[in-house]
Amino acid sequence: MLRSIFRNISPIDHRYSISEEERTVFDSLTPWISEEASIAACVKAEIALVTAHLSVRNALTPGRRKALAEAAALVEPAEVYAEEEKTRHNIRALVNVLKKKVPPDLAPLVHLGATSVDILDTGLSYRIRGFTGEVVLPLLRNLELLLCDFVEKEAETPQIGRTHGQHAVPITLGFAMAEYVSRLGKSILEIKRLAAGLRGKLSGAVGAYNATAMIVPDPEELERRYLAELGLEASEHSTQLVEPEYLLRLLLEFNVAFGIIANLADDLRNLQRSEIGELREGFAADQVGSSTMPQKRNPWNSEHVKSLWKAFMPRVTTFFMDQISEHQRDLTNSASQRFIADYAAGFCLAISRMSSVVGGLGVDRERLLANLRGGTTEQGTGVPGGIFAEPAYILLAETGVSDAHEAIRRITLKAEREGIDFTAALAGEPETLSRISGKLVELGLVSRPEDAFSFFEQPELYRGLSVRKAKTIAAKYRELMKQEGV
Amino acid sequence: MLRSIFRNISPIDHRYSISEEERTVFDSLTPWISEEASIAACVKAEIALVTAHLSVRNALTPGRRKALAEAAALVEPAEVYAEEEKTRHNIRALVNVLKKKVPPDLAPLVHLGATSVDILDTGLSYRIRGFTGEVVLPLLRNLELLLCDFVEKEAETPQIGRTHGQHAVPITLGFAMAEYVSRLGKSILEIKRLAAGLRGKLSGAVGAYNATAMIVPDPEELERRYLAELGLEASEHSTQLVEPEYLLRLLLEFNVAFGIIANLADDLRNLQRSEIGELREGFAADQVGSSTMPQKRNPWNSEHVKSLWKAFMPRVTTFFMDQISEHQRDLTNSASQRFIADYAAGFCLAISRMSSVVGGLGVDRERLLANLRGGTTEQGTGVPGGIFAEPAYILLAETGVSDAHEAIRRITLKAEREGIDFTAALAGEPETLSRISGKLVELGLVSRPEDAFSFFEQPELYRGLSVRKAKTIAAKYRELMKQEGV
Amino acid sequence: MLRSIFRNISPIDHRYSISEEERTVFDSLTPWISEEASIAACVKAEIALVTAHLSVRNALTPGRRKALAEAAALVEPAEVYAEEEKTRHNIRALVNVLKKKVPPDLAPLVHLGATSVDILDTGLSYRIRGFTGEVVLPLLRNLELLLCDFVEKEAETPQIGRTHGQHAVPITLGFAMAEYVSRLGKSILEIKRLAAGLRGKLSGAVGAYNATAMIVPDPEELERRYLAELGLEASEHSTQLVEPEYLLRLLLEFNVAFGIIANLADDLRNLQRSEIGELREGFAADQVGSSTMPQKRNPWNSEHVKSLWKAFMPRVTTFFMDQISEHQRDLTNSASQRFIADYAAGFCLAISRMSSVVGGLGVDRERLLANLRGGTTEQGTGVPGGIFAEPAYILLAETGVSDAHEAIRRITLKAEREGIDFTAALAGEPETLSRISGKLVELGLVSRPEDAFSFFEQPELYRGLSVRKAKTIAAKYRELMKQEGV
Amino acid sequence: MLRSIFRNISPIDHRYSISEEERTVFDSLTPWISEEASIAACVKAEIALVTAHLSVRNALTPGRRKALAEAAALVEPAEVYAEEEKTRHNIRALVNVLKKKVPPDLAPLVHLGATSVDILDTGLSYRIRGFTGEVVLPLLRNLELLLCDFVEKEAETPQIGRTHGQHAVPITLGFAMAEYVSRLGKSILEIKRLAAGLRGKLSGAVGAYNATAMIVPDPEELERRYLAELGLEASEHSTQLVEPEYLLRLLLEFNVAFGIIANLADDLRNLQRSEIGELREGFAADQVGSSTMPQKRNPWNSEHVKSLWKAFMPRVTTFFMDQISEHQRDLTNSASQRFIADYAAGFCLAISRMSSVVGGLGVDRERLLANLRGGTTEQGTGVPGGIFAEPAYILLAETGVSDAHEAIRRITLKAEREGIDFTAALAGEPETLSRISGKLVELGLVSRPEDAFSFFEQPELYRGLSVRKAKTIAAKYRELMKQEGV
Repeated sequence: MLRSIFRNISPIDHRYSISEEERTVFDSLTPWISEEASIAACVKAEIALVTAHLSVRNALTPGRRKALAEAAALVEPAEVYAEEEKTRHNIRALVNVLKKKVPPDLAPLVHLGATSVDILDTGLSYRIRGFTGEVVLPLLRNLELLLCDFVEKEAETPQIGRTHGQHAVPITLGFAMAEYVSRLGKSILEIKRLAAGLRGKLSGAVGAYNATAMIVPDPEELERRYLAELGLEASEHSTQLVEPEYLLRLLLEFNVAFGIIANLADDLRNLQRSEIGELREGFAADQVGSSTMPQKRNPWNSEHVKSLWKAFMPRVTTFFMDQISEHQRDLTNSASQRFIADYAAGFCLAISRMSSVVGGLGVDRERLLANLRGGTTEQGTGVPGGIFAEPAYILLAETGVSDAHEAIRRITLKAEREGIDFTAALAGEPETLSRISGKLVELGLVSRPEDAFSFFEQPELYRGLSVRKAKTIAAKYRELMKQEGV
Repeated sequence: MLRSIFRNISPIDHRYSISEEERTVFDSLTPWISEEASIAACVKAEIALVTAHLSVRNALTPGRRKALAEAAALVEPAEVYAEEEKTRHNIRALVNVLKKKVPPDLAPLVHLGATSVDILDTGLSYRIRGFTGEVVLPLLRNLELLLCDFVEKEAETPQIGRTHGQHAVPITLGFAMAEYVSRLGKSILEIKRLAAGLRGKLSGAVGAYNATAMIVPDPEELERRYLAELGLEASEHSTQLVEPEYLLRLLLEFNVAFGIIANLADDLRNLQRSEIGELREGFAADQVGSSTMPQKRNPWNSEHVKSLWKAFMPRVTTFFMDQISEHQRDLTNSASQRFIADYAAGFCLAISRMSSVVGGLGVDRERLLANLRGGTTEQGTGVPGGIFAEPAYILLAETGVSDAHEAIRRITLKAEREGIDFTAALAGEPETLSRISGKLVELGLVSRPEDAFSFFEQPELYRGLSVRKAKTIAAKYRELMKQEGV
Repeated sequence: MLRSIFRNISPIDHRYSISEEERTVFDSLTPWISEEASIAACVKAEIALVTAHLSVRNALTPGRRKALAEAAALVEPAEVYAEEEKTRHNIRALVNVLKKKVPPDLAPLVHLGATSVDILDTGLSYRIRGFTGEVVLPLLRNLELLLCDFVEKEAETPQIGRTHGQHAVPITLGFAMAEYVSRLGKSILEIKRLAAGLRGKLSGAVGAYNATAMIVPDPEELERRYLAELGLEASEHSTQLVEPEYLLRLLLEFNVAFGIIANLADDLRNLQRSEIGELREGFAADQVGSSTMPQKRNPWNSEHVKSLWKAFMPRVTTFFMDQISEHQRDLTNSASQRFIADYAAGFCLAISRMSSVVGGLGVDRERLLANLRGGTTEQGTGVPGGIFAEPAYILLAETGVSDAHEAIRRITLKAEREGIDFTAALAGEPETLSRISGKLVELGLVSRPEDAFSFFEQPELYRGLSVRKAKTIAAKYRELMKQEGV
Repeated sequence: MLRSIFRNISPIDHRYSISEEERTVFDSLTPWISEEASIAACVKAEIALVTAHLSVRNALTPGRRKALAEAAALVEPAEVYAEEEKTRHNIRALVNVLKKKVPPDLAPLVHLGATSVDILDTGLSYRIRGFTGEVVLPLLRNLELLLCDFVEKEAETPQIGRTHGQHAVPITLGFAMAEYVSRLGKSILEIKRLAAGLRGKLSGAVGAYNATAMIVPDPEELERRYLAELGLEASEHSTQLVEPEYLLRLLLEFNVAFGIIANLADDLRNLQRSEIGELREGFAADQVGSSTMPQKRNPWNSEHVKSLWKAFMPRVTTFFMDQISEHQRDLTNSASQRFIADYAAGFCLAISRMSSVVGGLGVDRERLLANLRGGTTEQGTGVPGGIFAEPAYILLAETGVSDAHEAIRRITLKAEREGIDFTAALAGEPETLSRISGKLVELGLVSRPEDAFSFFEQPELYRGLSVRKAKTIAAKYRELMKQEGV
């Protein structure tokens, strides 16, 4: 059933599967979360069930394994859908098709003792675990390592720290980005842990093994062998459904990681503002920024990532609503759960796009330094040189002045009122200056009290542990990412 | 660019575009909300812009109109996408392609004075208005009329009213369903009103007509002519974007209608419970209810509608987040806004499915009456005959007894304690019974006091204005739906 | 029942009811959305019901009206709650209390024919309508008028327009803020319309007038008189509940207005960034910006408004979930609906805070001009002077050059490559310059071709219709606000 | 600052803190999540900071510890708020107040080196950890143990399993409830784990230890000692804020547990429907179910829990939005984060209410059995006796019939068509019956083929592993809850 992709409705199935980079992502998704992947996983589960039946009967032979694998390979989505037009039941349709493909003596074993959800929920866990291991985690590790590279490269690059959009005190660019290494790194570890915990089931229509208890003496053993074929364990309890929380927690952690990436996107967007200009996304030679303003260079990739987050983040509400199923199940989670695929795709597209942003990020070290020092001249906090108010207050307090904060705050107000620099205003308070200068000498930051002002000329040195923290975090997660995978 | 639909990710683009009914819905959507529709609408807008330029210059001829229409018809999505690989800008790509199709002397007018969003937002309003008028409203009217049919047919069918899942007092089935006629009917009228109010723009990069003010003396007149070609008016103010609320309010009203339909779905699901069994969805002869329980008849269509609601309702959060765009716009609404198409498709699928449910709904009048009368015998409210507690209390209060509610409540407790019927317990309180009997005679409900109990044998008559309300509402909205369209 | 407000859990009931400004807001809320207001409204509704009963019986006298009003005034929340400890039913408790206060002969009429929700839903509509008219709309009008003042004052103040956080083309500050006048103005009108449409009911336990049909010949007439006492009309259909959409649409429109205000907050926050500094929130002399950085001036009020939006906006999901009630009602909307009060309070706090921000907003005209012209020198778009790329492209296209955009884009790339100003790069393309200069003369923007560069020295003049649009919109909504109320 | 609780806006602060049970919950919350708790925690953190300063200077003496504790005890919320009216900064206000309480020589150490958030975020982690350990976990363990009791008591009570609201195959009531033991049990363990992982910070205004690096040689050591005073560890990286995910994951797990409880509430509501009547909430003698229907017994507590879930579940969207903070922080998470207290209170109220429901749940074993067997007579699946279709299909398939499902499905259709019982229809197919009877003998379920129908007379025996699973799960979690604390 071929169709022009331009006739598709979801952007995931048209626009976001076209450009080279996105096509690569899309192609990595289809083996796991497309409709053909869904059907293939159900076939795989049905085959696992026949295998388990044979196994508990000691009737599993290599020849039968081979015959079953060959049968599985013959099932085509179109054939299943054609059958479903008749049965109006997707798994019964698949079973009918599969029965015709397997050796006739195995046909009665197909789906035997199973309810549809034994196949569907197990298949879903199998697919999402595979998808997480083969697609999500590699994408995330790649992004994490690109961030580590960036952090290490820019660990010592001075930057003004900003709170409330206002200049605060200095940090380094690497330190700022180490935030994302640390946060994303932990989320990657969580995602790995949770994907490993996904579960399947073979406990029948209401979770009580009613049917299989009539077939085999130990239905939980049958379930174990069935799931072992797919590398899964059994849901501790089940109704018709696997307990929803195994999958829910993984999806929530996806959304946690998504939020971290969205936060990074917002930071990058803002650092590319015309007035800030510290970073710049890569831009191709032929690329057009605006259809009417030929000069424009927009941070559109970072904006795109944020926009994807806005589109997908709220869908966790659906995941939470799907926790509720009446009695031994209702079907109101069926359609909604199918859209997990959209969510998963949107998440992957965001990671991938963010990786190309980070990988191609330009750094304007001149602007970084100018912005940082801007606080000492015309620009910045409104109070030129205000960046030094904190160390001045700390130094003053260290000399035993209890209301040091208030004393310095008054000097900043004076500076503002008189339109002078903070250091100039400070110079007008000899007692205070003298205490601060003395402390600077005591701390070895300047050699003589009269050199105090030299401290104020290099704000980038007032950066605390920025450099060390940046390097430590990057090194730690680079190492962890190595342990985590290929 | 053909691709197997089974490789698509979104259920909308595979599963929910396959069965006959859903394919019909899907095919009605593609002219409006697919990617080819999006490109076609932008081409249409670009042509409208050239037309408007010619018009204000008095240079618009039928020949030019024709040439432009022919040029528009030549633009293929694949060509635009190929160009975008180079420009990395979708509208510039489209403009480049279109310029080669139009007569050379008109090429300089293509996109002249416009920013991309002048085309995109206008095109979006054009598409959503068309989509609403041509797809959503016909689907909704069809559902509304099916509901009117049902209400009229079942206006007098007795049903027990239920609050808190408990038997309350009688109504009729038509009255119960008239709720949805009334609520959905008003929502249909709102949707129509709001779709008519969608707006476009031609005010340029920041909404101030900077570019067009250099081209024509009255840029607002140019905008009017441009939009008139598409049947739209101008956003009152604009930044780079049309004010977001015109569209937002329509999407919210879609979600209001979606909620009404989901409420109906929940009611229908529950009325099909094994123990209630008052209604039943149509079921095909070959249809399978469960892959392991051959006897099952599940209300799966109603469940499906509820599930779609769970998948789509929370997306309004995205719509609200997209209200916010920094300064004269940021791009963080770009990707997210593309998913309006998914939402719109999900909404249409839900309406369509609900229409087939309502159209094929089976009514079990015996069960309806048995359930209603159940309250008088073994089943029901815990207090057999408890259904009469309300009229007994009302009648008693009418005789001037101030604590009538408490008096009757004590009789129900006695009935429960002694395991007898409410009417039997009432008979044990001659003073109370006498007052009630007298009032029944006074109201003409029985002819003699000693006939009081005959009133209690036909609970279905204690139905208030159910019948009249049901008929009035159905008639009103049937008429309104006629006025509303073809 | 007095309690220290510091023992309260919700910030609305402690922190956000303390400062002078917020206490004023809080005090305006308690008559409408506190628990005592809720009880008072129910009492008012019960009295209205007795009055209606008397009215249809032609037994309503001024003396009875007075006696009922006096009885109503005697009901204390604490007494009702004490009674509820016994009945475990809030309305039955209130009814029991009220019956003891009214003249004994009227006691049997108290609550007669009503179900609790006839009182509760009607009382809620009454309160929300009053709250909207007396609190929300005055707050919104005040904000709207402050915005109009600002727009008019700054209608001609040059500002650089920004898209994607990048300098685009010029506007004026008043034009930028007119966006909010236009968007908020329309939302105010919608809120007023929707509040007027709130409905009540007196149709009994399942909406079919079962009880009242036993009491009066025309139960809809009784309902009309009951509701008329409270200035309301009847829900078109009802179950035990008023149709939920009357209130839902109003709450959604509150959220629409909330989003507009949040958008404004984001704009103001960003325009106060250290590097932009075009605006500044008022700041008290003793105010502390940071506990460690004495110089800090943070846009904390705008941040606060945005934060409130984040806290409250997602609650619309609850409003949508509360659309669904099984059959003639379930109670799962009861607790959730009580939190509408929190939402309403949060919304009012946000409006009020935004009004003080707008009322005290400082404008730095020097920075505004410097930022705008910054594009022509060192700062800004990366391409100095890039701001002129659009008019250059337009002018060039106007001379009939079809690929004008591409021609100018190449000049911006050249400027960037060579580190020169856009106008300098343009000067290096005499053919292009000549066409542009000619067009400038033709349009009367310069008098001689050789004066072309003078056009590029005053970017603030390339502002399109900014001034006119700003003034028109402010005037329109100022006038509308006058019509709308005191 | 005393105020009548009836003037409060949030239901948490009025209605839900009044009844005896809820007042107990409320009183357990105030030491952790009220405003006075918030201030007390900040004071505690400030004292911890002074202590840490003294400790690294080897100047911490028991006397000073005592003096500091005494100073802390003197800080009153009202005094802090009065000071904040002046400073407009909550932490600076608290610091100013505290400085006056501590011994003068320690005053300069108050807040030294800290930014407000070092106190606030640390205090929040301290409070939420304490709240979780002292309030949430005890409430949850109590509910879990009540569920274990119920499961063990009803482990063998027959119940019909239901899927899609339709009778499926038998289970036991204890098995059905074991679902919640299993799901909630795992969530409890997760909550405990995540609460233990909450973090604090003392890294200053931008997370780089700028200030403390000027005060002590090893600022991370100072941070460790500060946090150790509160039993916390340090955020791995921090900006001005602790990494948001430590807290976010705990809140998400709260919401997971909330969803499980809401699912239970829905099940209980539905099992109390008039037509089902298997369970009943406890009901007090004086309690009123409806103000107009004196007989009503509504499952209002279960409805209340569901309603709380609807009110609070969507607030996770706010938690996810609060992950994003620009650069080294913006303040847009400040107000929103305060409402975590509301969320936490709502969650506790729901657990508490659910516990009283479960603790007082009445079981109607007659109705349970009647409903289960109902499937064999008039009521139920539409096909009387249809409950046996699954075992019949399984038994038939076991004899090697490949299309056994279809064969049995046809028999159910025949039964339906002819209005006869499934077993009667089965009797009409001797070949099929013979195969099934033989299999029943083979499995030892009946002794002779002619006894086959005796199997069909006791559907409650077709319950699979229900009993064993119920007991195993209850025993496991009872044991785990013991290990988890008193």
